[in-house]
Amino acid sequence: MSQKTHKRNVYLEDIPLDEARAAFQTALQAAGWWQPLEAEEIPLAQANGRITARAVWAKISSPHYHASAMDGYALRAQDSEGATETQPRQFTLVENWDTPPTEPRPIRPVNTGHPLPPWANAVVMIEHTQAVKLPDGRAGIEIRASLPPWQHVRPMGEDMVATELVLPANHKLRPVDLGALAGSGHATVSVYRQPRVAIIPTGSELVSTESVAENGIQPGQIIEYNSMVLAAQVADWGGLPTRWPIVPDEFEAIQTAVRLAAQHHDLILLNAGSSAGSEDYTAAVVQSLGQLLVHGVAVRPGHPVILGMVDNDKLTATSGRLGQGDKVTNEPVTPSPSHSVIPIIGVPGYPVSAALTGEIFVEPLLARWQGQRPYQPSTITATLTRKVNSPTGDDDFVRVAVGEVNGRFVTTPISRGAGVITSLVRADGIMRIPRFSEGADAGSKVTVHLYRDARDLARTILAIGSHDLTLDLIAQFLAERGGGRLASANVGSLGGLVALRRGESHLAGAHLLDPETGIYNQSYVRRYLPNEDVVLVTLVGREQGWLVPAGNPNDIQGWAAAARDDVQFVNRQRGAGTRVLLDYELGKLGIKPEQVRGYGREEYTHLAVAAAIVSGAADFGLGIQAAARALKLDFVPLAHEQYDLVMTRQTYESERLRPLLDLLHDDGFKTAVAAMPGYDVSVMGKIMEIAAINPD
Amino acid sequence: MSQKTHKRNVYLEDIPLDEARAAFQTALQAAGWWQPLEAEEIPLAQANGRITARAVWAKISSPHYHASAMDGYALRAQDSEGATETQPRQFTLVENWDTPPTEPRPIRPVNTGHPLPPWANAVVMIEHTQAVKLPDGRAGIEIRASLPPWQHVRPMGEDMVATELVLPANHKLRPVDLGALAGSGHATVSVYRQPRVAIIPTGSELVSTESVAENGIQPGQIIEYNSMVLAAQVADWGGLPTRWPIVPDEFEAIQTAVRLAAQHHDLILLNAGSSAGSEDYTAAVVQSLGQLLVHGVAVRPGHPVILGMVDNDKLTATSGRLGQGDKVTNEPVTPSPSHSVIPIIGVPGYPVSAALTGEIFVEPLLARWQGQRPYQPSTITATLTRKVNSPTGDDDFVRVAVGEVNGRFVTTPISRGAGVITSLVRADGIMRIPRFSEGADAGSKVTVHLYRDARDLARTILAIGSHDLTLDLIAQFLAERGGGRLASANVGSLGGLVALRRGESHLAGAHLLDPETGIYNQSYVRRYLPNEDVVLVTLVGREQGWLVPAGNPNDIQGWAAAARDDVQFVNRQRGAGTRVLLDYELGKLGIKPEQVRGYGREEYTHLAVAAAIVSGAADFGLGIQAAARALKLDFVPLAHEQYDLVMTRQTYESERLRPLLDLLHDDGFKTAVAAMPGYDVSVMGKIMEIAAINPD
Repeated sequence: MSQKTHKRNVYLEDIPLDEARAAFQTALQAAGWWQPLEAEEIPLAQANGRITARAVWAKISSPHYHASAMDGYALRAQDSEGATETQPRQFTLVENWDTPPTEPRPIRPVNTGHPLPPWANAVVMIEHTQAVKLPDGRAGIEIRASLPPWQHVRPMGEDMVATELVLPANHKLRPVDLGALAGSGHATVSVYRQPRVAIIPTGSELVSTESVAENGIQPGQIIEYNSMVLAAQVADWGGLPTRWPIVPDEFEAIQTAVRLAAQHHDLILLNAGSSAGSEDYTAAVVQSLGQLLVHGVAVRPGHPVILGMVDNDKLTATSGRLGQGDKVTNEPVTPSPSHSVIPIIGVPGYPVSAALTGEIFVEPLLARWQGQRPYQPSTITATLTRKVNSPTGDDDFVRVAVGEVNGRFVTTPISRGAGVITSLVRADGIMRIPRFSEGADAGSKVTVHLYRDARDLARTILAIGSHDLTLDLIAQFLAERGGGRLASANVGSLGGLVALRRGESHLAGAHLLDPETGIYNQSYVRRYLPNEDVVLVTLVGREQGWLVPAGNPNDIQGWAAAARDDVQFVNRQRGAGTRVLLDYELGKLGIKPEQVRGYGREEYTHLAVAAAIVSGAADFGLGIQAAARALKLDFVPLAHEQYDLVMTRQTYESERLRPLLDLLHDDGFKTAVAAMPGYDVSVMGKIMEIAAINPD
Repeated sequence: MSQKTHKRNVYLEDIPLDEARAAFQTALQAAGWWQPLEAEEIPLAQANGRITARAVWAKISSPHYHASAMDGYALRAQDSEGATETQPRQFTLVENWDTPPTEPRPIRPVNTGHPLPPWANAVVMIEHTQAVKLPDGRAGIEIRASLPPWQHVRPMGEDMVATELVLPANHKLRPVDLGALAGSGHATVSVYRQPRVAIIPTGSELVSTESVAENGIQPGQIIEYNSMVLAAQVADWGGLPTRWPIVPDEFEAIQTAVRLAAQHHDLILLNAGSSAGSEDYTAAVVQSLGQLLVHGVAVRPGHPVILGMVDNDKLTATSGRLGQGDKVTNEPVTPSPSHSVIPIIGVPGYPVSAALTGEIFVEPLLARWQGQRPYQPSTITATLTRKVNSPTGDDDFVRVAVGEVNGRFVTTPISRGAGVITSLVRADGIMRIPRFSEGADAGSKVTVHLYRDARDLARTILAIGSHDLTLDLIAQFLAERGGGRLASANVGSLGGLVALRRGESHLAGAHLLDPETGIYNQSYVRRYLPNEDVVLVTLVGREQGWLVPAGNPNDIQGWAAAARDDVQFVNRQRGAGTRVLLDYELGKLGIKPEQVRGYGREEYTHLAVAAAIVSGAADFGLGIQAAARALKLDFVPLAHEQYDLVMTRQTYESERLRPLLDLLHDDGFKTAVAAMPGYDVSVMGKIMEIAAINPD
């Protein structure tokens, strides 16, 4: 089943996104799939969120009769002419309905919503009447103001007149729309059928979430969740997803799954394992059952997207015949508007690629099938904080964080890895770098397609700098109390001060030891932010020490251990406070970097250092005790340090920071931090103000 | 069951919205209902859209091992040092996994996603290698570039490190979030339980949509759809609605329904019929089963809102005892945090009041129960086109249409009637006029809370002027083709020209006969828009005539019939082209308005005139043939007229108008218009340009 036997009409090279879309659209059009699905008539009570397939016209008027709008009395407005406070008019109570009363001034009780007698044309509110005995002894009603015609009457058709347009086609039904449809005499509504989408995960290395929860997981196994993400996307976009069980990497098994799925679905998403081998199966299966249109699209992340059409007639006809090793013909498929040809998308295995393939290829198709335009996220213009390099051949979808700092939006790229699902979870939006562009420079204005309501950004605190587990706790507490939101990016203490200076963040976590004075952060702030009034808010004191495997098998003790030639070190990146501390202590002992085995291997977080030790890639590293405990490592204490939040005075005094600063005096929060080993909360919330040296 | 026996602690007067909210909140807090609901643990696959009840931390790292990011070979990066195009390095193929190989430069095949052997720290892509035979005869691999450590390796924890915060509490789960949870070792997630909301429609006048579809409807009957609207709202807001069947206006029946509902729900919405009598039942039932907190809130529309708490213990204890005529005590309810007290909201019967009560009282409560802040619609600032009067005592929620004309937003109120559900269907947003304000002046800047994406407004064509059924067809065709959106307001032809002059619309439908020349619209445009280059686009020619009951029982013929004293006329409003035509023809015949019986009764549309005749309120009126046919009236032709769309040249040439102008040359559209009786499409699309007399 090598691709080489099926080269005709197949793009074996990545093709540009717009060409891939065009090729898919041409095939969909030829097969009658480039239009809304059929309509179905459903009860109104089930129709919320569905899309009208045709215009709806009022069957009856609403109200469908002249209705009293008040509790009161129906009368003829002209009979009330001249009534005033001093010259009341008296009316005779009658029972007449159809036949016009013969009394001079007839009046009849009527309640809200009740029909008006045909002879009446106004209603007087009960509060504005008085019961009287008429001169002839009959019961009467007295009125002290004249009424205009149609006073307090809801005339027939006030809301809708029969035959009027109630809703156009292609309208997404909201709760009030259901009311208007019901009120105009409809009990059902014609809506587009929901697209049925089969989602088939393939890959022998895949294990289900349930299996992981029960049996744990082995190296080489990959948790299968793309099908869950795709199914949720499909449901969000109005479709009906069917999740297939995991199919092993076998041509015949995949072919059978596709064949089955094609019989009852409108679209098949075949999610390859992440290996190139799996993708070959996808392509070969599509080829064997229909037409492979596109194999590889020049988008990043997402390259190995496959687009094709599966021929239902063909696969039914050949059902039971095709098997392992069978020769599959590659005759051109005759497109048929009868939907016997079903579109299929080979979705790449990396989770970010898979989710973006959903957004780029699946959403627009489902929208079209339901008479809608593709979803257009709202956009903002933001200043890019870091240079982004992009391959010129690709449309590049860069996940970014966005913050609003000093009244302007700033944006910074998040991890580029296609395997990093948290880059999508944390992304505030996507920056698209088109083909033929090499990227974007730091400081340039870029357009960000938002995942998040722009108003959420107004209450987001952007923390860029050194990371500490306490920041995770702050994020958690702020979310639970609903008062704000913390987004953080980890670039080390010095990187954080640089970002602060550039106006790209609200605060920086920092733990930078001044070797001259032994005082934390202050001299660095003077150097990096000389022109700003700055406030240092102490978050915690914490212990730094060696992270070592449980039991400390190599007996690593004291700073001097860094120079041992029998153990492998793992370092933190340049600019990290932990790195500054290490270099300071090594300097005191006269140990040179080249004497430290592994000095060049840099990790960006305490947890990443701990993970390197757990995996056996290193024997020890410098970090905080909480990281050791998190990954069940041992901890050899070496030093106490101070971790501050650095911010300008202006930010310190802003409304945005209030919920965070309040937390630092909250007992519940302090208790949660103190529960982590190696943390000292006695210093939490201490303030140090540093005035600008050269204020503007 | 009169209210008078239960006066204590009950507001019998409408109270301000903020006081009502505060009273409800106090009672909810006392009963433990002012906080999120309990958590429940559910499978990830069912969790999309649900809200996390607590923070989620990674159980395992992702990847949970050092994984190859490519198909290729694993090796030690340091072994590749110095490799170049001219000086390749040769590696020995090995099988070793755990044990470090003894060969000088070991290399081992590895596929994407596979774990790295512990002795390796980089991967070379298969494309960058060449198979060779080594000098010792063994199989080898040649490399022509050196690799940095960790090249093409996804290090353990690249995505998430065990113990890291994956998602905070109170986070609404999106598809990618499910992926992150699964990838960090979770198969389930703790989310807030969904609020269970009982919706009980009451009213003996109510009939169901199903019954209307089967049996039709009688005067005085009201189609019950509020419960459907409320149920759909509740579902949209994350709740689980239960719709009760219609309960008749009987104290005991309503009490029984509430008692049952309270046992299995978190909130009860008791939807009164629109009559004051029904509301009394609601108040009395709440009073009998618990505590009536608020009876009447000063919001418009919506006044008769009832807020209360039902005591589950009390109603269980008294179950079977309370009945018709039973004396109900009114002792203060002791609040209990055990949720034995259930909140109940008496929702007014008018549909607009009911839907807004949902937005104002139900949504914020459901949001709080799910750890969310109340929904905040996005807002725009717009120029108000008409003065709005508002009662000073009320918070007034005015439904408005919004248009973007010449780069600024303009807004105009839609029908104020609480019974007009289409005012919510057509509304682009809500303008809130706070208590103590008497309204807002024309031309003032107001804030509009949008129901619609502001970007939709950018492609909306705002037509204000004379209405024609063809405008409904345009709206329908534009919606079906997805190219634009038409919003129209009917203020008559002259009103349309005035709106156009003020820059409050994109176009005006007009059919204004110049009595001097017999030419339509041109002289009016010269008079009303002297300073603009204007384009008249003819939409249709159409017949005007008498609308009369089927069979024309009064034998109404010719213009002279207007003066008959045995029949009742219904007129159109001042400024309507049809009114201009009538006045012109009456003038020619020397008939004075006071000779026309019913001249003073004005309707705003052709259909409203037709509806007045169907209802028997009038015997004849002037209108178009399509209106007669729509309501099965007869039509006596009198005149041909021309109906134009009037717009500035600037608008005519704008992108926004393109889809509409294209329609006028579309055969499908022409056919649809021609199918309506009395329409001449031969003139459709004709252009008449009128240059500015006094250009700026």
